[in-house]
Amino acid sequence: MYRSHTNGELRLSHKEETVTLAGWVQKSRDKGFMIWVDLRDRYGITQLIFDEERTPVEVMERAKSLGREFVIQIKGKVIERESKNANIPTGEIEILVEELEVLNAALVPPFTIEDKTDGGEDLRMKYRYLDIRRNPVKNKLVFRHKVTMEVRNFLSNQDFVEVETPYLIKSTPEGARDFVVPSRMNEGQFYALPQSPQTFKQLLMVGGMDKYFQIVKCFRDEDLRADRQPEFTQIDCEMAFVEQEDILDIFENLTRHLLKEINGVEVEKFPRMTYDDAMRKYGNDKPDIRFGMEFGELNEVAQHKDFKVFNEAELVVGIAVPNAANYSRKEIDKLIDWVKRPQVGALGMVYVKYNEDGSFKSSVDKFYAEEDLAQWAEQTNAKPGDLICVLSGETNKVRAQLSALRMEMAERLGLRDAKIFAPLWVVDFPLLEWDEETERYHAMHHPFTSPKVEDIPLLSTDPAKVKANAYDLVLNGNEIGGGSIRIHDKETQATMFDYLGFSEEEAKAQFGFLMDAFQYGAPPHGGLAFGLDRLVAILGGQETIRDFIAFPKNNAGRDVMIDAPAKIDEQQLKELHLKVELK
Amino acid sequence: MYRSHTNGELRLSHKEETVTLAGWVQKSRDKGFMIWVDLRDRYGITQLIFDEERTPVEVMERAKSLGREFVIQIKGKVIERESKNANIPTGEIEILVEELEVLNAALVPPFTIEDKTDGGEDLRMKYRYLDIRRNPVKNKLVFRHKVTMEVRNFLSNQDFVEVETPYLIKSTPEGARDFVVPSRMNEGQFYALPQSPQTFKQLLMVGGMDKYFQIVKCFRDEDLRADRQPEFTQIDCEMAFVEQEDILDIFENLTRHLLKEINGVEVEKFPRMTYDDAMRKYGNDKPDIRFGMEFGELNEVAQHKDFKVFNEAELVVGIAVPNAANYSRKEIDKLIDWVKRPQVGALGMVYVKYNEDGSFKSSVDKFYAEEDLAQWAEQTNAKPGDLICVLSGETNKVRAQLSALRMEMAERLGLRDAKIFAPLWVVDFPLLEWDEETERYHAMHHPFTSPKVEDIPLLSTDPAKVKANAYDLVLNGNEIGGGSIRIHDKETQATMFDYLGFSEEEAKAQFGFLMDAFQYGAPPHGGLAFGLDRLVAILGGQETIRDFIAFPKNNAGRDVMIDAPAKIDEQQLKELHLKVELK
Repeated sequence: MYRSHTNGELRLSHKEETVTLAGWVQKSRDKGFMIWVDLRDRYGITQLIFDEERTPVEVMERAKSLGREFVIQIKGKVIERESKNANIPTGEIEILVEELEVLNAALVPPFTIEDKTDGGEDLRMKYRYLDIRRNPVKNKLVFRHKVTMEVRNFLSNQDFVEVETPYLIKSTPEGARDFVVPSRMNEGQFYALPQSPQTFKQLLMVGGMDKYFQIVKCFRDEDLRADRQPEFTQIDCEMAFVEQEDILDIFENLTRHLLKEINGVEVEKFPRMTYDDAMRKYGNDKPDIRFGMEFGELNEVAQHKDFKVFNEAELVVGIAVPNAANYSRKEIDKLIDWVKRPQVGALGMVYVKYNEDGSFKSSVDKFYAEEDLAQWAEQTNAKPGDLICVLSGETNKVRAQLSALRMEMAERLGLRDAKIFAPLWVVDFPLLEWDEETERYHAMHHPFTSPKVEDIPLLSTDPAKVKANAYDLVLNGNEIGGGSIRIHDKETQATMFDYLGFSEEEAKAQFGFLMDAFQYGAPPHGGLAFGLDRLVAILGGQETIRDFIAFPKNNAGRDVMIDAPAKIDEQQLKELHLKVELK
Repeated sequence: MYRSHTNGELRLSHKEETVTLAGWVQKSRDKGFMIWVDLRDRYGITQLIFDEERTPVEVMERAKSLGREFVIQIKGKVIERESKNANIPTGEIEILVEELEVLNAALVPPFTIEDKTDGGEDLRMKYRYLDIRRNPVKNKLVFRHKVTMEVRNFLSNQDFVEVETPYLIKSTPEGARDFVVPSRMNEGQFYALPQSPQTFKQLLMVGGMDKYFQIVKCFRDEDLRADRQPEFTQIDCEMAFVEQEDILDIFENLTRHLLKEINGVEVEKFPRMTYDDAMRKYGNDKPDIRFGMEFGELNEVAQHKDFKVFNEAELVVGIAVPNAANYSRKEIDKLIDWVKRPQVGALGMVYVKYNEDGSFKSSVDKFYAEEDLAQWAEQTNAKPGDLICVLSGETNKVRAQLSALRMEMAERLGLRDAKIFAPLWVVDFPLLEWDEETERYHAMHHPFTSPKVEDIPLLSTDPAKVKANAYDLVLNGNEIGGGSIRIHDKETQATMFDYLGFSEEEAKAQFGFLMDAFQYGAPPHGGLAFGLDRLVAILGGQETIRDFIAFPKNNAGRDVMIDAPAKIDEQQLKELHLKVELK
């Protein structure tokens, strides 16, 4: 071992002890007769002192040559510091160095290894191994480990078994694009990397392994949006002989356990909200309920006046932004510009200032009397001092737009407090969603998701109204998990495939082995998957996942550190029976 | 929840309780007036009783229709059995059924779901989800989970951090073949799946994450030998600021912990053996030391007589097979046939019977006197009653042949006791091995493995003699782990690349980002990886890994259950800029 202690370990109680430390030179101050070096490792920083009068000459000389990020080993005595540093745990002591060995020199790093670095995103990604030396990144990786250990121990203690499912599986045309892997031994054939272990976990249920989990990498070849990764990690779970309530119960307990153990936060029973309510009240199936600004639907109180825009709208809906009635004309114009950005897409915004004195001032005073606006205030739950923002248009679009505005205002007003955790179950998702492109219904969640029994008759009359036994766990406005009770009997499955427009042959071709398995005694089952990257980020008080991943890829799906993907040689292609055909 | 208890849970203490159970029909005995059904789930079997006099008529009728593997739910009262079954934990009770619901009917399974099944290997692989219902397979998967939980908790408690490294990385021509993944977004480029996280874990050391582990899937596109899988799981570990001794210490403790917690076996300090000694004494770098039959080298006592075969051999070497002197001529002939099989490849075998009365009888009595044979007995540690088997030829080949014979004889004599655990560190592996094909030295372990400092001068004079800081952990004749101290300074690395025949440019092209990283302050580091599949199998008292993997592939790399790999459609190929070119 190159050290007797770590650099986060020594205290005044170690005074006079001779210790050996190793680590990286964080910084060095050379006063000529005295040199101080901050020595860093994963555990902290310890101050070293080299002193003309007490340190051997050749050690002193060598100390002068130390550059940033040199890897060194020292031996010395723990002494009490004259000027203590209360900001670090080792701040009461320093090491009077007797021996110094340079284990490895270092080039000057391309950015500073400090909590606040001067390195830009691109540079930090290229030199990720240096970025990981920085506390903000290192701590997030250690935090992630802590979360996964808690998850595993919690589930294992509840009799869940972690089962590894294969990575080299079969491509299915359903869902997102698969990454594929050409097989050398099976000419012209390909494996696919799993988008999730969905079918395998259902097969495990058929196999009697009634409580399964796995923390597992999944792969989706999607055009990457910001903060999406082509490979991501899922906490994947499935249970047999359970109903929806049992699953919500277990994973609510898991989440509560994590909030308590990781964040020290006690949370009561999680509230539940139907998908329909979430859309109506927040315009969003993953509402952030840490703050209000619930939607107020205004059709009844805003239509049938002379304001054509509202009269022609499918939905008129507003929110009361707290304490924003004093926004200047300019500020409001900027807000209107914001909702008109292509990313939001509103055509305009009507506002009502609900003044502190109880009066109203709106951009549509021409059409509405104070009594009308007072009704708006009532519907949006506005209080004197609030600014009511109203959007109108086609229901789904306007809800999405107002939801975006609500989140933006919450952000501006500091209402999205990372220290507050507001979990929420969103339940009763629609079974189907209409696909404009193919002009048919698709399974919203998964073709094996079970419909609510009482809604099955609606399948033939009003498919869009059929609800599923599907649920999402939302935390602070982020979907952190989702799942469903699956169909386990052949009849319902056949009905579903029929409504999804699959012929019997097509269903067999795509889901044959799972359907076969279902004939040999499939138990009732259901499950859930958490997005680990997102869960960890949110527990860590952040919303971007990238720094919670050790070696993330950029938005073009590239690892810029190792420069992957890359060309492979002709011989390798030939062995795989492949030829590259560039456009 | 579909059940109040599992099928392994009820005891006499539950008598008179009304319970709800669910599971699969293991078997049913219909006596007309009474029907017994064994109900099975992951946790055990509970006997149900349907009784003409006490069970409702329609329930009785439905019970008659139950077939094997039907999934049912019942409600009934726990009663005491008249004839108890001491073989199962629930054997003192049975359930008098009041209600019965068939949750799912089942086709007759293609093989019996019993501990001893009538299903052949191929059928069981095709219906793996049914095979998993069988105790021997199910228990192995649960066992695997138990082992991985112990590993994770042990390492985590020692401050190791599990860090997930990426699966979509870059192909390197070194080592075995990579599986590659074509990139849609980066035309004509490919990711590779990792053969191991080797470079990433070294980068993590450069990044200061000084105790890393990961239980991780790895991929090798090799022509599969028996009991090899294209995807396999590794317990991957790396540490910084350590020497070989520190690594052996930690992972010896981990293994000892597993043996204690999993197998209830206490093991003393693990013996160590140099690679050279292992080859000399066992002809093998992963010797099974649960039994003797150590090699006796016989050159000195067997050469320079008139027996030309031995005189011309580079090595004459024998083992004493205990209590086999009474083998008949026919048995010995069969043994000689066995060593001459192509898989072993010996040209013949000389034997010496060391009779109980102290006399010798050999196949080479013509050339050797009793005194000569007595010397052979001394060299091979033979006792009266033993059979000395002697092979000769080129050293490496004959050692491998005799090692195969030693293992075969141990198997036949029942010396490979699965309840005994004999771990062994094999150390001081050669740094380089000669590659006949390319006629140059290759790194035996990895081009970043560090040579023993004292051997560095030998690099230029006798490279084959240079030893590395490399070690394997062997358990019962199986390599379960291996690793090395890595090179961390540029000079040694340059020397190594030079001796491995890399130009500076070639080294940069292949290992550029790691070499770059090494310039920014790489600490001394080293590590080890365990093969989890093998480790779990051996702890489970078995040597084949297949049943410890939930969904294994066959020897052609196929998953016969899901029928992968498979063709993908033209559109998908086109998006990937690929064309299949069959021979």
